Amino acid sequence: MKIIDKINKAIESQEIFYSFEYFPPKTQTGLENLLARIERMGKLHPQFIDVTWGTGGSTADLTLDICHYTQNLTDLETMMHLTCTNMSKKELSLMLQKARDYGIQNILALRGDPPLGTHKWRSHDDGFSYASDLVKFIREEHGDYFGIAVAGYPGGHIEASSYEEDLLHLKEKVDAGADFIVTQLFYDSELFFSFKQRCLDIGITAPILPGVMPIHSYQSFKKITKFIKDIPQHVRDTVEASKDDDEAIKAYGINLISELCQTLIDGGVEGIHFYTMNLEKRVTYILEELSLIPNNMKKPMPWRRSANEKRAHESVRPIFWANRPKSYLARTMQWKDFPHARWGDFQRPAFGEINDFPRDLTQLYPTKCKETWGKPLANFEDIKKLFVDFCEGKIARTPWFDEPLALESARIKDHLINLNNHGLLTINSQPQMNAVSSDEKVVTWGESGGYIYQKAYVEFFISEQKMDFFLKMFKHYPSLTFHAINKEGISYSNTQDVNAVTWGIFKGKEILQPTVVDPQSFMIWKEEAFDIWLSIWGSLYEKESLSYHLLEDISNSFYLVNIVDNDFIAGNIWTFFDDYFKIVK
Amino acid sequence: MKIIDKINKAIESQEIFYSFEYFPPKTQTGLENLLARIERMGKLHPQFIDVTWGTGGSTADLTLDICHYTQNLTDLETMMHLTCTNMSKKELSLMLQKARDYGIQNILALRGDPPLGTHKWRSHDDGFSYASDLVKFIREEHGDYFGIAVAGYPGGHIEASSYEEDLLHLKEKVDAGADFIVTQLFYDSELFFSFKQRCLDIGITAPILPGVMPIHSYQSFKKITKFIKDIPQHVRDTVEASKDDDEAIKAYGINLISELCQTLIDGGVEGIHFYTMNLEKRVTYILEELSLIPNNMKKPMPWRRSANEKRAHESVRPIFWANRPKSYLARTMQWKDFPHARWGDFQRPAFGEINDFPRDLTQLYPTKCKETWGKPLANFEDIKKLFVDFCEGKIARTPWFDEPLALESARIKDHLINLNNHGLLTINSQPQMNAVSSDEKVVTWGESGGYIYQKAYVEFFISEQKMDFFLKMFKHYPSLTFHAINKEGISYSNTQDVNAVTWGIFKGKEILQPTVVDPQSFMIWKEEAFDIWLSIWGSLYEKESLSYHLLEDISNSFYLVNIVDNDFIAGNIWTFFDDYFKIVK
Repeated sequence: MKIIDKINKAIESQEIFYSFEYFPPKTQTGLENLLARIERMGKLHPQFIDVTWGTGGSTADLTLDICHYTQNLTDLETMMHLTCTNMSKKELSLMLQKARDYGIQNILALRGDPPLGTHKWRSHDDGFSYASDLVKFIREEHGDYFGIAVAGYPGGHIEASSYEEDLLHLKEKVDAGADFIVTQLFYDSELFFSFKQRCLDIGITAPILPGVMPIHSYQSFKKITKFIKDIPQHVRDTVEASKDDDEAIKAYGINLISELCQTLIDGGVEGIHFYTMNLEKRVTYILEELSLIPNNMKKPMPWRRSANEKRAHESVRPIFWANRPKSYLARTMQWKDFPHARWGDFQRPAFGEINDFPRDLTQLYPTKCKETWGKPLANFEDIKKLFVDFCEGKIARTPWFDEPLALESARIKDHLINLNNHGLLTINSQPQMNAVSSDEKVVTWGESGGYIYQKAYVEFFISEQKMDFFLKMFKHYPSLTFHAINKEGISYSNTQDVNAVTWGIFKGKEILQPTVVDPQSFMIWKEEAFDIWLSIWGSLYEKESLSYHLLEDISNSFYLVNIVDNDFIAGNIWTFFDDYFKIVK
Repeated sequence: MKIIDKINKAIESQEIFYSFEYFPPKTQTGLENLLARIERMGKLHPQFIDVTWGTGGSTADLTLDICHYTQNLTDLETMMHLTCTNMSKKELSLMLQKARDYGIQNILALRGDPPLGTHKWRSHDDGFSYASDLVKFIREEHGDYFGIAVAGYPGGHIEASSYEEDLLHLKEKVDAGADFIVTQLFYDSELFFSFKQRCLDIGITAPILPGVMPIHSYQSFKKITKFIKDIPQHVRDTVEASKDDDEAIKAYGINLISELCQTLIDGGVEGIHFYTMNLEKRVTYILEELSLIPNNMKKPMPWRRSANEKRAHESVRPIFWANRPKSYLARTMQWKDFPHARWGDFQRPAFGEINDFPRDLTQLYPTKCKETWGKPLANFEDIKKLFVDFCEGKIARTPWFDEPLALESARIKDHLINLNNHGLLTINSQPQMNAVSSDEKVVTWGESGGYIYQKAYVEFFISEQKMDFFLKMFKHYPSLTFHAINKEGISYSNTQDVNAVTWGIFKGKEILQPTVVDPQSFMIWKEEAFDIWLSIWGSLYEKESLSYHLLEDISNSFYLVNIVDNDFIAGNIWTFFDDYFKIVK
């Protein structure tokens, strides 16, 4: 949604918010690290994030890709910077259209710095000279679709001939259609408050977010503040005095910024914008220092929402991608509608391919994780061991899990370890829940005062030999429904309908059933689940290696099975496996 | 749906079905009695009912209205008779279009008897001479939309020159597009079986339903069998011998028909068609005798479905019309889509008016009931007493209740009586249910093996004075949500969203939530609920009477209130009232 609408809501509920600014990194590894960091910092619940445009548009495509990723595959509302430097109207138009196609709804419109290697700003022959022109252009081309922010300079713009002129330029930008203002960084709260007052005096009533930058190091501070007016001399002096003492600068910076933020908050700002410099710790410390992090932020759904507004009403997903949510989001990104309330009615267009997200950023495994999963495999025991290690928390991710085992599954991890030790390689599961209060902290979702239910679910790979007896057992466990299929497509099942396996009952509301087992989607997921054996895990080995052949054998011969225990009150799915293991070792 | 599809399903599941034929009565009272009877007999779950066309089209409009009523306001699939007698193609076309507009999907196509007062059949100048032409015409004009049945004559048609010619006419009708055959009544099973065999011999493979008529009285037997060939002489003789002994004829008839039906069933018929003559008891006896009535027919939904196919996917309704389902069905009949899975998403067109069903057949109160509710009223105590009497089962219906108190509400009737005795006049309610097995007989719905849930609900009229304190109390009962409004539209509430108050969880299925409290629909219902005081109850009195004035006072000053206890596990809605009565007498 538009950030201005979020700001207005926050103002109404008197909540202080914060936002994080990032810049596109230079390498692929840097990019993977940044995206992982953005997601980790996402758990601090910033109201939005923004991504810079790179001097002279030098990172245009990458900026777009990062914004595409965060807007669609995470729940972070993303504002894309856009500058006039080096850009023709046609190019600007194209970028705006791309941003819109990607579901990005917020633009920070800037004139931009002079192009790299130059010192004086010059407009493109067929472009704009002022940010206000860009704001006008966006409004002309896209009406009210985009939320637009513009920059404000509490210390005055370095090129401005006078403070007054600078303020008039800001007014032009707001009058042209900007919704709110983000300020250049500053360290003196008085400077901000007098800026805000002078804005008000000339009729600028849009919200003004103060921009603050933690001091990360002597070097970065020097570099960034070079072009900024009015850095208080005492700040410059203290930093200079500690130039060789990183720890001292760090401590000073945290203190300084925390105090600055507190003063700003006391002075009535709506929120604070952090220039993170792609760094995590300082910002987190400061937010902790200020006690701003909401300590009981409940997920509205058991899965993470996408920030893309077209998914705002999405309220049902198949369970299969629970541990690969980005893959699901990427594969369904082209859908025009998303299932709401019910999966069954929904006329689904085709699912996309696993990796059709630009730059294939849907699967990010830290190197450490890859190293673990890339070790030579001698036999099936080695493979089993890796599944067990994951359940035991010794490995953070696997090719089938974007993230560590969910807390709720940790509750049943002994059962999962048991299954894996018996050669049933688990890739998804959820424990049974019967009327668990939604106020229970760890595993629930949705608003306070509700009741959460789950049917027990477990999904795993199993060898063909073991399958035989499995199938014979099912009829003796009438509360179980299952689907089984191998790579070739030979399948078994005792149910055809869509099965709701997670639902919640809330005060004064209709029923929510966010997770279902859908037989048709299982056919899509099956392709992905089998493909992972070779295209992801197998890609870590030579094709002629024993390791690769082992993985190949499994993917060619094993069955993928999912089981639901429909009796969420009196059932016990593990009895089935215990009985099974008594007979089949 | 088309009856042939139901027949094919029944054949597949090897279930013997039955159907009931009715004819339009001559008076308004007769009509009201018939409709009430059809609905009572509907509880025997006939596979379909059919309504005759009246000699020479003499009852055309009434036939259409009755079919309209049963097809839309009840769950009885209805087949309309249509004959060629006295009808031009244009008139036939018009009737078929009306039937289609009303959602009627099955036609019994007949040539028809000669017009009243004549003995020889004669075709209309611009009409048809044979039923087969009518069948062709229906197929030409409406393609596959209609299911079509035609008549067969096991004893041969009275006008046919030979049995063979008669069979060839039947074959023409089937070849023209008829789906199945209903036979003229007969009393000799051999006649039927040989007829069926001869049909097969000439290639008629459509299902043939034997038509049987219980013997209701000497007179009716004589009258009806006058034009029917091949009534066995021993049947005629026995009836004749008992002409003055009604009981003997009745007993003989039941025996005779039960045996006939059993022989037909043993001989492999798919179902039996009863010529009920608008009478109830004989048919019920015979079906009981044959043990054909399904003894554990579960409702698929807590409310009764409509037979109209466009409502086939309807799965959510507001609770307000729970006791006036026909009013709800009639008011929403013009909708193109019906809410499914969720009420909230549904873009509702306007609700119709209370009485916009043709001939206003949505409210049928037996005379006895009207007499009770039409007694002079001296004061508010008299009014309270009628509400109490209804809860105690002393009155079968009230202006707000089409039917006696539902069995599930009978479980909370002591509470309801208490409320009414305290002047809170209850018009709707449901008890709390927490995971009640759907196999529990009395109050549940849906398929076997599920769990049913309900939030406690109660709706009543309350005086303005009492309301004041009521409103103050709510905040102390956080699990309650409520809506209150008076005739003028002054309203109070503590909730805005749609609240699911009945839902079910079933094996391998998505969640069903068939009943909701919807604030917007409440505004529509409120008009009806208040209107009933004067337009229905008040209509039984002179406008200047004390009784009328009493009702007028209430409708002008009382509030209509509904309350939901959202805690379906630990809540107790009655505590609220008990606490209230401790303070407000």
